[in-house]
Amino acid sequence: MVEALVQQVLAGERRALARVISLVENGEPEGYEALRLLYPHTGRAHSVGLTGSSGSGKSTLAGALARELRRRQRSVGIVAVDPSSPFTHGALLGDRIRMQELTSDPEIFLRSMATRGSLGGIASATAQVVAVLDAAGKDAVLIETVGAGQDEVEIAGAAETTVVVNTPGTGDDVQALKAGILEIADILVVNKADQPGADTLVHLLQAVVSRGGDERAIPVLKTVATSGDGIAELVDAIDEHRRYLRESGQLEWHRLAQARHQVLALARHELLARVLRATEENGQLDELVGAVAQRDLDPYSAARRLIESAGGGAGGGARPAR
Amino acid sequence: MVEALVQQVLAGERRALARVISLVENGEPEGYEALRLLYPHTGRAHSVGLTGSSGSGKSTLAGALARELRRRQRSVGIVAVDPSSPFTHGALLGDRIRMQELTSDPEIFLRSMATRGSLGGIASATAQVVAVLDAAGKDAVLIETVGAGQDEVEIAGAAETTVVVNTPGTGDDVQALKAGILEIADILVVNKADQPGADTLVHLLQAVVSRGGDERAIPVLKTVATSGDGIAELVDAIDEHRRYLRESGQLEWHRLAQARHQVLALARHELLARVLRATEENGQLDELVGAVAQRDLDPYSAARRLIESAGGGAGGGARPAR
Repeated sequence: MVEALVQQVLAGERRALARVISLVENGEPEGYEALRLLYPHTGRAHSVGLTGSSGSGKSTLAGALARELRRRQRSVGIVAVDPSSPFTHGALLGDRIRMQELTSDPEIFLRSMATRGSLGGIASATAQVVAVLDAAGKDAVLIETVGAGQDEVEIAGAAETTVVVNTPGTGDDVQALKAGILEIADILVVNKADQPGADTLVHLLQAVVSRGGDERAIPVLKTVATSGDGIAELVDAIDEHRRYLRESGQLEWHRLAQARHQVLALARHELLARVLRATEENGQLDELVGAVAQRDLDPYSAARRLIESAGGGAGGGARPAR
Repeated sequence: MVEALVQQVLAGERRALARVISLVENGEPEGYEALRLLYPHTGRAHSVGLTGSSGSGKSTLAGALARELRRRQRSVGIVAVDPSSPFTHGALLGDRIRMQELTSDPEIFLRSMATRGSLGGIASATAQVVAVLDAAGKDAVLIETVGAGQDEVEIAGAAETTVVVNTPGTGDDVQALKAGILEIADILVVNKADQPGADTLVHLLQAVVSRGGDERAIPVLKTVATSGDGIAELVDAIDEHRRYLRESGQLEWHRLAQARHQVLALARHELLARVLRATEENGQLDELVGAVAQRDLDPYSAARRLIESAGGGAGGGARPAR
């Protein structure tokens, strides 16, 4: 059954795609099985992170990018990880119409991720959904994140190219500088560039960027996502960045870092799952948790006792986790 | 040496407190040892989460709350987890002066957390810092978070009382509703209540809250953090909520949930640390990661092989992590 589903995903069938993504998101065993079978078919798509605060218009920008990519005959996946994204919740009427336009194109696949629910692992889950879209043959996968919080920075870091979206006049520019979001930017965009203050913000960002002293100059581009102004130039800059990644060997390095991240995240989950299964029957967890809540035991000692009672975990040793 | 440091923390010495928090934040073995010794002294402080978007003025509100709590002879810890918080990065001159006023009071301890760096665990690290401040005798610990992203929601969930901060005229209100942030609110605040649209927002929030049908009505309060208007009423509402938690038995329930969360997070970290130590010498991790980056192996199988090569983990079994 999973094999048939995987074949349908590889053939680009939308319903199978949606189905497999749900299985993956919910952590179903069939989802992992599907991913295992799909994985050899990954590694082709260009993953592009779009990061910016809630008012920056990055959903509209993602839509505009998708349309421009389609104009260039490329298929597109969009993964929205921002809980306040209009992709996630629907929004103003204008946005809805623009979105319907997007979702009626069979070569665009839009998915919003639930950012709450299962403990941890949203960055890992996002990477898995991107892998499914990659295997399904999408040429580009756009990942929309809000860019505040460590998870979101990790998600953005998973993209090969990260576009940080700023807007004039919100004070967000200064906050982006402070929060260190610029450090993850491969391309800077001033969206809503028809609004007052856009040129000032462009100059500010250029000044910051030129201080970096990296071998590659980070481009600062102006866009008006609602009208499409500057979007073709942004796609050109994204393509240019991928060329740079390939030629400089950084793509290889990025893939190793991503693989390491994924393997460790999955190992961590698997290890805990094994301990919980092993201690399911003896009631150890509830007992230890009760003692911690009562302050009879500290959480570190409780964690260690839980591991010992499940059979010691791998390696053993008395040193605490770091 | 750790014992001496712990004694100084229990005596309320600021430098020892700062030192122990750094050890904890950096995941040093001495930090865990200190926490183990401090843990029996925790469970007294009232932890209060302040959640809202970057423009909501929640840092100023935290400062105003701290001053009002001091007026009531209570000692205060403030933990800022928002990377764009003025507590973290300094900000406008007015804020700086207000902050210096705060930090010159020996009974107020202010700390901002680094939200990037070590993989995962910011919610867990925040809970640990709160525990240190609790053991050091702080009556209240205010936790400032940006309220977007799963980590931030988890951090807010760690507080006994969660205050969600809204501001009129930013459209943030609607986003809060959409993002489900209201679900975690024990108290709703409309800050900057002297600005246009404040009453509309209050009515909107009251309408939403009254639909909830919970046994406890969620209060909607107006504040002007810069002038101090409404702050005494907010402290009253926070105290009232704690009384409610105690009397309804929910405090007990909350502590069990928190303890469970902490024990599982620490077990997960410890288990991975053990696997990494066990595979440190044989180069297994690098080999597996390389194979995944090359698409010769999928990350799930790699994670499982890593665990097996370290001695199988606890319990074993072929079922994947969920």
